[in-house]
Amino acid sequence: DHYIICGYGRIGALICREFAARPLPFVVIEKGSEVVSKLEQEEYLFLRGDATEDDTLLRAGIKRAKGLISVVTSDTENVYITLTARGLNPDLYILARSGEDGSEIKLKRAGANKVVSPYQIGGSRMAQAILRPNVVDFIEIATGREHLDLQMEEIRIPEKSPFIGETLVTSGVRKATGVIIVGIKKATGKMVFNPHSHTKIEALDTLIVLGEPGEITKLEQLVSCESCADSIINHDTKEPHDHA
Amino acid sequence: DHYIICGYGRIGALICREFAARPLPFVVIEKGSEVVSKLEQEEYLFLRGDATEDDTLLRAGIKRAKGLISVVTSDTENVYITLTARGLNPDLYILARSGEDGSEIKLKRAGANKVVSPYQIGGSRMAQAILRPNVVDFIEIATGREHLDLQMEEIRIPEKSPFIGETLVTSGVRKATGVIIVGIKKATGKMVFNPHSHTKIEALDTLIVLGEPGEITKLEQLVSCESCADSIINHDTKEPHDHA
Ligand SMILES: [Ca+2]
Ligand SMILES: [Ca+2]
Repeated sequence: DHYIICGYGRIGALICREFAARPLPFVVIEKGSEVVSKLEQEEYLFLRGDATEDDTLLRAGIKRAKGLISVVTSDTENVYITLTARGLNPDLYILARSGEDGSEIKLKRAGANKVVSPYQIGGSRMAQAILRPNVVDFIEIATGREHLDLQMEEIRIPEKSPFIGETLVTSGVRKATGVIIVGIKKATGKMVFNPHSHTKIEALDTLIVLGEPGEITKLEQLVSCESCADSIINHDTKEPHDHA
Repeated sequence: DHYIICGYGRIGALICREFAARPLPFVVIEKGSEVVSKLEQEEYLFLRGDATEDDTLLRAGIKRAKGLISVVTSDTENVYITLTARGLNPDLYILARSGEDGSEIKLKRAGANKVVSPYQIGGSRMAQAILRPNVVDFIEIATGREHLDLQMEEIRIPEKSPFIGETLVTSGVRKATGVIIVGIKKATGKMVFNPHSHTKIEALDTLIVLGEPGEITKLEQLVSCESCADSIINHDTKEPHDHA
């Protein structure tokens, strides 16, 4: 149920920091001795070894891991690690870093579920900083941990949530918490954008929300708490077709 | 009124592609001969030369440029280019790429307005792909040009817009176009998040919106067109304190 992070370079270190802040359980695989001393300093769980080797991945618990993130410096090694990991665990979520052009397709073929290219994302962000500077500011604030005015978050509607069957407006969520629901990921995987206020909330929906951290925490509690939610749900609202 | 892009590496090429798609006028400064042949193929406007030199930047029109993007491979050179550019044009918007740790602060000191670190952004995106996979999907769809279901855009309210003085709800925007207004950047620079429906629209506000490309285009037209907007503005709505 843990994550395996292969490579403790700049990107690996950043991912460890984000995971540790959640906290999410993880183990690092790293082969360089100078780097290993940094891992000891951070007190992260780690394995000294080569992530391209079956044995190392097995010792890292790959059979019961939730995901593996391949972020060593070499594209060839990331492809090899991905291939090996996919062979050892067909259900594992594999996220890999792509460096050179053409490596993305190879990583996908090797079995990566998702590939991130820092150059591609960096270049895109720079272009958008000129083309849509305010959108970039907004996204950086909404997704960054430092700016606490706004957060974009995802909230799963559990099987027995009091909100099931309510519409976005009858749920009373916007009024009670101030969050905006900008999207709903259905259990089928389909993404509904800008759902209108009469959209019904269903079990296992994932709401994509925007709001202050405190507001979001409040909503996270409400989605599972029958008695709490009862006070905010609008039971008096007539059906849409009865509106004037 | 153009942009100067220093360096036609992977990131420079990506930025050129995005700018050409808008289209936004730019000129590339590149010193490597093999790279220059690629520029000739793309038919981009370019200058063969060293962007660390005053003369090259002057020939590229730095005195009347709107912005400069420093994306050569070497951090030291990006710092030098930034310093030189800032010296030649104090009002220029300078965006620079940062590679190694510590270069971000030097670029800022050298005069960069904004610094983007591909490793930092790449690592952050990878961590978020695990921590908030649906939020990441949403943002990638909203900001990417390929997925046309949803776009996040910024729309400036011009001085004489028919929407000035209307509230978000009386403007009729949500009803007429389907877009959500997720933020408002005020002329003062202050960002208002999740503005409530009774927020007044003011001249020179920049609305941060989410919607389908067609809906957004419709709104862009409406903000400047008195007669078009008149049909969607809700003149009958009573003042907030008159609501039941
Ligand atoms: Ca934030
Ligand atoms: Ca899009």
